[in-house]
Amino acid sequence: MEAKAFPMNGGDGTYSYAKNSLYQRACLNSVKDMIKEVIAEKFDITCLNSNTIRMADLGCSVGPNTFIAMQNVLDAMVDSNQTSKEFQVFFSDHVSNDFNTLFTSLPPDRQYFATAVPGSFHGRLFPKYSLHFVHSSSALHWLSEVPEVLLHKRSVAWNKGRIHYTSASEQVANAYAAQFEKDMDIFFSSRADEIVAGGMMILIMAALPDEVHHSELPAGVVFHFIEQSLIDMVKAGSVSEAEVDSFNLPIYAATPKEMTRLVERNGCFKIERLELTDPMAKFDGPMDITGMIMHLRAVFEGILTKHFGSKIIDELFERTKDKSAEISAQLEASYRKGTQLFLVLKRK
Amino acid sequence: MEAKAFPMNGGDGTYSYAKNSLYQRACLNSVKDMIKEVIAEKFDITCLNSNTIRMADLGCSVGPNTFIAMQNVLDAMVDSNQTSKEFQVFFSDHVSNDFNTLFTSLPPDRQYFATAVPGSFHGRLFPKYSLHFVHSSSALHWLSEVPEVLLHKRSVAWNKGRIHYTSASEQVANAYAAQFEKDMDIFFSSRADEIVAGGMMILIMAALPDEVHHSELPAGVVFHFIEQSLIDMVKAGSVSEAEVDSFNLPIYAATPKEMTRLVERNGCFKIERLELTDPMAKFDGPMDITGMIMHLRAVFEGILTKHFGSKIIDELFERTKDKSAEISAQLEASYRKGTQLFLVLKRK
Repeated sequence: MEAKAFPMNGGDGTYSYAKNSLYQRACLNSVKDMIKEVIAEKFDITCLNSNTIRMADLGCSVGPNTFIAMQNVLDAMVDSNQTSKEFQVFFSDHVSNDFNTLFTSLPPDRQYFATAVPGSFHGRLFPKYSLHFVHSSSALHWLSEVPEVLLHKRSVAWNKGRIHYTSASEQVANAYAAQFEKDMDIFFSSRADEIVAGGMMILIMAALPDEVHHSELPAGVVFHFIEQSLIDMVKAGSVSEAEVDSFNLPIYAATPKEMTRLVERNGCFKIERLELTDPMAKFDGPMDITGMIMHLRAVFEGILTKHFGSKIIDELFERTKDKSAEISAQLEASYRKGTQLFLVLKRK
Repeated sequence: MEAKAFPMNGGDGTYSYAKNSLYQRACLNSVKDMIKEVIAEKFDITCLNSNTIRMADLGCSVGPNTFIAMQNVLDAMVDSNQTSKEFQVFFSDHVSNDFNTLFTSLPPDRQYFATAVPGSFHGRLFPKYSLHFVHSSSALHWLSEVPEVLLHKRSVAWNKGRIHYTSASEQVANAYAAQFEKDMDIFFSSRADEIVAGGMMILIMAALPDEVHHSELPAGVVFHFIEQSLIDMVKAGSVSEAEVDSFNLPIYAATPKEMTRLVERNGCFKIERLELTDPMAKFDGPMDITGMIMHLRAVFEGILTKHFGSKIIDELFERTKDKSAEISAQLEASYRKGTQLFLVLKRK
């Protein structure tokens, strides 16, 4: 089955992802030095039997973050290897991603041949053994679909009145975890087919420390307020209860233990580095709540519109903005360290 | 210098290229069997040292023609080689091409990994020796830019009151030919860098038999009527004379002799086959003048809008449609055989 697509907002308007992705930029910045280090130490370009280094960014969205990420990686490779090789970068995301915007905003002074690959990373995207390096940031925590069991009224995991697992029952959280496992199995086996022996994969994604309960995830705090706004809208008659009951955000934050187990179960990759980082530590610019809500809109408007229609979007985000003070207070109180996983794998 | 982009109309609306490219389809159909034949006879997949066959369509536009073309090529390769290799197809066109439409209309049952490469083929697009097969149909007759000398009032090649060389002086035709030469030099040297030894390139493009004068080119008949409509519009005050004087269609139909000389001057390719074909022989569907004008609009609306603004487009094509009877008569009388070149090259 084709994975569901939940594209970020395209174009470069007020609510576009291109203009509202500073949080994802912070995620990248927080690992920039780690990427340089790990490429210098663990990625031996010279032993790869190819004059061209082919690298992919999976879940690239529309930029500019993907350009910054690929430039970081490329700089690290050139610095540490003094290479005269040529680079081909494959920007990959769902078919419905706004590739036109991506292409028109490509850095004019790039030192690589730019290409785009449309499709879901929950499946094959590239020929066998054709990639030397894979990067994915702020993407792998998206599930390929909402676990079906959340939608069945008679299921113990029916997620009535909620839009995520962070404020829900253990059964709901388990259904999310099971879907994530299935997705990662397909992700790792696809990448194992595509990456050459000695090739490297760097995954940066939402995560949860092993010892922290998922109800403490700061993203969950934010999702809970969107949920509350939706429930207010049911009361006001703008959306139906059934619509809210059948909506769930397909996002999952795995623990280091879970990821380790999934990598080992696949068996084709060696873990070179695995650590939790704190993306907010290097957040560049003021993270006011209004900015955060713009960011949420850029990310979630697509999936919300698909389910509820576009007419509810303004009201939903206005209502959520009205809760700014509460959101701010609860975010301050929530667990905020180590909510990002930095995982470096090498193809055996 | 970046080559100028003249994209076909995007999307899939009434005036879109996707809905108005039957003529280009006919160009493809007219050479389908020849492609099969030449791949079977001259393209030895097994001797290429790669598990993946990487092929590119240069000037792909938005489909569906490019999908049909790539499927023809792929079928020919599989039929003649019983190969288990994987295929990666690079769809390439200017950055401003509508790649979003291309991606959403990709054939779901395709047997290849689809990728897109934005940029002008008048320059490098791919890493060194990374391609095994290059195809280009109905694209290479586009010049990278209008020869500058056509725009200088004191030049002998000033193309006052005309929009093409087919109805102009020899000096104007020579300026077009010189620009085409320059463009082909860059095209061939770029492709020579990108294609592996033994790799093949099939070029299908507008052409003129060696012995025919360019004033007899049927495309010239059509361009002449657009020119006439523009001049009528100068009289009616809808466009200025200066605007018409400074507009020229950057399209050139080379002769087999010219192309042979340019290939030999580059020196990296062997000519495996070169012949003139007649695209209209297999034209599928009625080629009424209204249909032809829709086709012209899909192809030229972009470049005309860039120069004259969008407000003149409807009037221009209405006026041209009013000349249908004359166009039809003159087209019947014009030379119509061998106006397409089928050129097969092999990288030495």
